[in-house]
Amino acid sequence: MSETKAAIGATTGSRLGDEIVSRINQLGAISETAEHLARIFLSPEHRTAADLLMSWMKDAGMAAHLDAIGNVCGRYEGERPGLPCLMLGSHYDTVRDAGKWDGPLGVITAIACVADLDRRGVQLPFAIEVVGFADEEGVRFASTLLGSRAVAGTFDESVLNARDANGLTLREAMVRFGLDPDHIGAAARTRRELHAYVELHIEQGPVLEQQNLPVGVVTAISGATRLAANLTGMAGHAGTVPMAMRRDALAGAAECIGAVEEFCKADSAGLVGTVGAITALPGATNVIPGKVSFTLDIRAPTDAHRKLAVADIVRRIEAIAKRRELSLQIDVTHENRTVPCAPWLKAQVAEAVAAEGFGVLELPSGAGHDGMAMIDIADVAMLFVRCRGGISHNPAEHVEPADADSGARVLLRLIENFRPREAGGTT
Amino acid sequence: MSETKAAIGATTGSRLGDEIVSRINQLGAISETAEHLARIFLSPEHRTAADLLMSWMKDAGMAAHLDAIGNVCGRYEGERPGLPCLMLGSHYDTVRDAGKWDGPLGVITAIACVADLDRRGVQLPFAIEVVGFADEEGVRFASTLLGSRAVAGTFDESVLNARDANGLTLREAMVRFGLDPDHIGAAARTRRELHAYVELHIEQGPVLEQQNLPVGVVTAISGATRLAANLTGMAGHAGTVPMAMRRDALAGAAECIGAVEEFCKADSAGLVGTVGAITALPGATNVIPGKVSFTLDIRAPTDAHRKLAVADIVRRIEAIAKRRELSLQIDVTHENRTVPCAPWLKAQVAEAVAAEGFGVLELPSGAGHDGMAMIDIADVAMLFVRCRGGISHNPAEHVEPADADSGARVLLRLIENFRPREAGGTT
Repeated sequence: MSETKAAIGATTGSRLGDEIVSRINQLGAISETAEHLARIFLSPEHRTAADLLMSWMKDAGMAAHLDAIGNVCGRYEGERPGLPCLMLGSHYDTVRDAGKWDGPLGVITAIACVADLDRRGVQLPFAIEVVGFADEEGVRFASTLLGSRAVAGTFDESVLNARDANGLTLREAMVRFGLDPDHIGAAARTRRELHAYVELHIEQGPVLEQQNLPVGVVTAISGATRLAANLTGMAGHAGTVPMAMRRDALAGAAECIGAVEEFCKADSAGLVGTVGAITALPGATNVIPGKVSFTLDIRAPTDAHRKLAVADIVRRIEAIAKRRELSLQIDVTHENRTVPCAPWLKAQVAEAVAAEGFGVLELPSGAGHDGMAMIDIADVAMLFVRCRGGISHNPAEHVEPADADSGARVLLRLIENFRPREAGGTT
Repeated sequence: MSETKAAIGATTGSRLGDEIVSRINQLGAISETAEHLARIFLSPEHRTAADLLMSWMKDAGMAAHLDAIGNVCGRYEGERPGLPCLMLGSHYDTVRDAGKWDGPLGVITAIACVADLDRRGVQLPFAIEVVGFADEEGVRFASTLLGSRAVAGTFDESVLNARDANGLTLREAMVRFGLDPDHIGAAARTRRELHAYVELHIEQGPVLEQQNLPVGVVTAISGATRLAANLTGMAGHAGTVPMAMRRDALAGAAECIGAVEEFCKADSAGLVGTVGAITALPGATNVIPGKVSFTLDIRAPTDAHRKLAVADIVRRIEAIAKRRELSLQIDVTHENRTVPCAPWLKAQVAEAVAAEGFGVLELPSGAGHDGMAMIDIADVAMLFVRCRGGISHNPAEHVEPADADSGARVLLRLIENFRPREAGGTT
């Protein structure tokens, strides 16, 4: 092991990190407007970024092409042509007013690792593919993971009729971009072609920073349940209704918010619960609120844990509403299954982290990622890289060059030491 | 007493109530639009309503005129001309989409009482004046009590430059209506001219209904303190920030709302506290709120009690913010002093209630009324009449005819038995 490390260290120094940061900045300059980074699916910036990524792929010794949905795909052959691949990737679309790292870090780091192998003439007993997914954020058509769903063969054709803010359908936007909406199926890959899917991504949370670690091993992409709650009491004059006669919907909602927080804080298995939006009507200083609606977002690293938690939280909210004589309407508006990282693959990620000399911290991913789609055709693992303050989806999003380098070293070690499951990977 | 009651009863039967309801409906038909009752200060409807009220005043044996601010003023002389008066009144402007009873019931009942005295040729050792105030609600120029402030001599001339929604100033609106904005002082009355000011008004709350009483004796018009609170924590991803690392401004606000409710519920002296408006930013389902602002409205029947309560509530909010590492900005945005009802006068109201055979319930007025201005030139008392469900400022506002009649009987008895403070009223 130490020999391998020395060999890599001698070859790369901090050059991987420096090159990655330089490329993050180059890609980050490709934006709809100069002031705010926005690189939206099927836009002219999508095209420019795809061309740049494919040029880097080719420089790294890969064959590169744009697939049927607009993903960039690079392939670095193994010891002989046509071997199943270890697929690495992330997305290169952004939210509006985005940071430069969310998505691109995974694509650029993977290319940098392949370039390093290519420079050293390393050929492995499997191919490596790098995918830059064209749409993960779902900004334009309000439907996320369009790129990875096409690759996983689970693209929902009805989304072709979804319209962007200008009224253009996805179908029309694809045609204008030069893609054929009737052949999205051509982007689909099969389980046989892939040994695994591994994604490096910024954490988008504060845990690694708090733990003083540059990287972390993801246990699962937490599933999420979103609910909408509506409480109805009785509006009334803030001066004339005695406290004991009130049916104050906002006081009831406040108790619910407190109960959600208390319940999730008491959990030690990664449960998080958030009330992000609230509206109180009529919303005047001198009127007791008669109607309040609020949202709930509940996530946990396993589906069973999340479902139990949702049921328990709903029961608590129901009890609060009943005691306060408020009528309650509560509905699930959205649900994502948990995507567990495959134990045998996660173990190899952890090995690579330890081999690079870092403490191994396992943590769930509370945010969604392309692995949520890729799980349908491959075992999935993720490596998180620390980002400053846990801030993401914000121009202040930042990764230290040393951390970008650490992430690249771990990913490169993982690749070089990768054992496909069939070839003796532990389950 | 029973003799007097029989005499009044024989004269009025339920006719006072029936006539009052009929006039409430006539006045309620004078509205900006047919669908929603709105009778706004210095509008054409103001003029039409004033003319109708003055015609009723004249029919009741009163001299009637429109004063310098647009109030209708009727005077029924006592045993000799020029005696100080017992002033009765309320307002005849409305909010938008109003009920028919809030304000007009007090004006119309007072006229009905005088009409009854006039029919019976009763002359008292004091004059009676009935005032219909032209602006209590403050809908048009965002400044309340313009009518009663003019009568009390406390009209703020700077309000003449306030503009309505169409950009018209109060000064311009007065000129268009035919009033002289430079002579508002002519509406002012002096303490010597008034023995007292007594207002009959719907309760606008649910207490009388709950107590199964048609009328109630007001102890004070509760003062109010309004505050605006802003909590700032740290926005973050609803999935990626563990519960223990959050600085959730909405969870903090929820705890504050709970503390306000708990504090006020524990009070047995009429304290009420309301959070009526709340905004959480950024306000997305999947983002922990970083900033929350909310309003606070605190009322109590004495200023000392309210001020202590406000200080205590603010301390609790400060402690919550500190413990949660939220920054807090909390400011008083509005403050009204408490207007206590004069004990000697309140005692006469209670006597009249008891003499009519009703239980005497004393309660504070949580809502504001013209007495808040009249206190500057006269002792004040109020009689509340039950309204259905405590609902007001709403087309569903309703008073049973029998309750309107009960209110009128009590007011009439109060008038006939009235002893000015100088002539032996208890203090």
